[in-house]
Amino acid sequence: MTPWPPAPHDTPFPVENLPYGVFSAADGRPRIGVAIGDHVLEVGPVARSRGLSFADLLFGSTLNPLMAAGPGTWRAARAEITSWLTDPAHRAAVEPHLLRRDAVTSHLPFEVADYVDFYSSEHHATNVGRIFRPGSEPLTPNWRHLPIGYHGRAGTVIVSGTPVARPAGQRKGPSDPAPAFGPSTRLDIEAEVGFVVGVPSDLGRPVPVSGFRDHVFGVCLVNDWSARDIQAWETVPLGPFLGKSFATSVSPWVVPLEALEPARVPPPVRDPAVLPYLDDAGESWALDLALEIRINGHVVSRPPFAPMYWTGAQQLAHLTVNGASLRTGDLYASGTVSGPERDQRGCLLELTWSGTEPLEFPDGTRRTFLEDGDEVTITATAPGPGGVRLGLGEVTGRVMPSPAGPPERR
Amino acid sequence: MTPWPPAPHDTPFPVENLPYGVFSAADGRPRIGVAIGDHVLEVGPVARSRGLSFADLLFGSTLNPLMAAGPGTWRAARAEITSWLTDPAHRAAVEPHLLRRDAVTSHLPFEVADYVDFYSSEHHATNVGRIFRPGSEPLTPNWRHLPIGYHGRAGTVIVSGTPVARPAGQRKGPSDPAPAFGPSTRLDIEAEVGFVVGVPSDLGRPVPVSGFRDHVFGVCLVNDWSARDIQAWETVPLGPFLGKSFATSVSPWVVPLEALEPARVPPPVRDPAVLPYLDDAGESWALDLALEIRINGHVVSRPPFAPMYWTGAQQLAHLTVNGASLRTGDLYASGTVSGPERDQRGCLLELTWSGTEPLEFPDGTRRTFLEDGDEVTITATAPGPGGVRLGLGEVTGRVMPSPAGPPERR
Repeated sequence: MTPWPPAPHDTPFPVENLPYGVFSAADGRPRIGVAIGDHVLEVGPVARSRGLSFADLLFGSTLNPLMAAGPGTWRAARAEITSWLTDPAHRAAVEPHLLRRDAVTSHLPFEVADYVDFYSSEHHATNVGRIFRPGSEPLTPNWRHLPIGYHGRAGTVIVSGTPVARPAGQRKGPSDPAPAFGPSTRLDIEAEVGFVVGVPSDLGRPVPVSGFRDHVFGVCLVNDWSARDIQAWETVPLGPFLGKSFATSVSPWVVPLEALEPARVPPPVRDPAVLPYLDDAGESWALDLALEIRINGHVVSRPPFAPMYWTGAQQLAHLTVNGASLRTGDLYASGTVSGPERDQRGCLLELTWSGTEPLEFPDGTRRTFLEDGDEVTITATAPGPGGVRLGLGEVTGRVMPSPAGPPERR
Repeated sequence: MTPWPPAPHDTPFPVENLPYGVFSAADGRPRIGVAIGDHVLEVGPVARSRGLSFADLLFGSTLNPLMAAGPGTWRAARAEITSWLTDPAHRAAVEPHLLRRDAVTSHLPFEVADYVDFYSSEHHATNVGRIFRPGSEPLTPNWRHLPIGYHGRAGTVIVSGTPVARPAGQRKGPSDPAPAFGPSTRLDIEAEVGFVVGVPSDLGRPVPVSGFRDHVFGVCLVNDWSARDIQAWETVPLGPFLGKSFATSVSPWVVPLEALEPARVPPPVRDPAVLPYLDDAGESWALDLALEIRINGHVVSRPPFAPMYWTGAQQLAHLTVNGASLRTGDLYASGTVSGPERDQRGCLLELTWSGTEPLEFPDGTRRTFLEDGDEVTITATAPGPGGVRLGLGEVTGRVMPSPAGPPERR
């Protein structure tokens, strides 16, 4: 397919992608758009001028109404927008609604209902187990039986580009007699893939693995900022809390699930066999996404998503198997994406082996954990149809000094 | 004060209480009301007829707009409503908006933003530690330094009276070779007190202990239903997830913080001393609430709230000290309320010592954990002004059979 809007050869947003987002131009009013090449198309006015039944869903300040409408509407809207951008007959009507992306501001694309964070990379969980519990079995006994997860703070999910203040909190090293309060000295990132729920479900009605495409609208990138020192002190017995809840950044463009069909690959072998409600033999959603993490422009890791032990479809089935209901805007993230190689690890805790092996950048700087002013950017691409490469855009954020002052050196 | 609406001597809702809720009458339309004796007053129309500036906040299907308006408006509205109900001059205008409470249906009173569950009863945490880790120190090293908490699922917070289906999930006993899937056989309750956030806060700006009354609108009762077998298997390393996320019930009436001023008591001694951000010497919010738990009408426990180690004000300060923002509708719960005595324990796990000491009811029935059809009701009262007793209403729910079939006997 050849779109008529100019698109660079290597754009993350060719016409086979068409991710949705929310943006504003000079007037500050949020609008719903689709990214195409270097542009964004405001889709509502075009849909309304064509009298389309779903046009009303494309106005407003969030994607939630469109997300709630379900796969039939998602497919119809995608087919329409594709035709607008590839059939020159539509050009005159569509072109006035095309804006340059570098001239608009991105907003949080959807209102987050509940946020759940999983822990589904075997390599990540194994590395973390080795770091925190050296000498013992790195994976907990439940890890290969269910996708471990927990609820995070939905109210602090922020859009890419929002600065992140270094959090303060209680930390206590193993040899400290008592905890001290202060800015985190072990501020980290976690590169993750997020699944965005569109269609809600009823309380008491589990969603099977095969229901994934009926409920999930699309995929985004997630940076689950983590303060490792705060997390370590608080986490036993009820799990991560303030070590995570200060900020979770998401990419501004939600890639429709339909665009990722060519990225589906066979899932990893699960041994032992999973319980029937997690069996994805008939409907696997392992996805061949290639992530990249940059710190201050230096590539520090390229985590592969395909080897993730648990897929988004299995995570959804697990999340609801107890009867928990879904709401439009529920976001659940994969957990840190780490591959088997050292340069495929998805967080600094692993990349620097808990700070003992600093990263060295070509400019001579070194990092164990993040310094004030550091900018972290996570990107990802996926195979599209016919050799085209689709991008998931990027999630980026800069570390700001703590309002509680600079972290002491420990 | 003597209200003109008839109120039984022992009503939980005397005119000194005036909790807010959302109800519907025959037409099914949700309206905002205040409970008084055996009645509920629809407050919006009265406020509008009197031309009050806050009248618009009292229409709609949730308390969120009123909650967001802040303490000045809360005080003004409460003073107005008090005068409507005590000054006979208002009777003719107010009485047409008074409905019998037994003729209306209660709805979830507010839209829940984020839900956090704490773990702040020393007796509960100690009992749980003894049950799960016999022979070792029952409290984790961090317990007396910070209010342990975690995020729960906001989307499955339901109003009192909503039936609760027995959840299914993975369970694995210590001697089982592998996990099995099925309905929970250890379904439990947790009696808790919930704090409802009204005024939001900015990302990056911690709310101090002294900010409690500027942000918290009121208090409700919470039953944090828990499937102990599902919880036990999943909880290491990231905390409770599906063992809790199937349902959390809340009482329909939110008691304004102002009504609870007479219930404030000195907090327990904290040893070791807490870090400055948790110091509540100048602004303690320990509350002398008396809870009661009934199962199928039999009183099984009377947990006291006053000895809770961490107060709602400290929990709020901790929740935000890392810069996490608050939203209108955030709900955070105290954690299971257990006192020092056996008949003051707030959950069946403790009351039956993990099922080894069944409760025996006067009718000859016994319980370890909940059976299908069981109805659990939690109530609470607080001292009001001049010896009046205020009620927090009740949170009740009946256990329905699992859609996955009856639990096997294990």
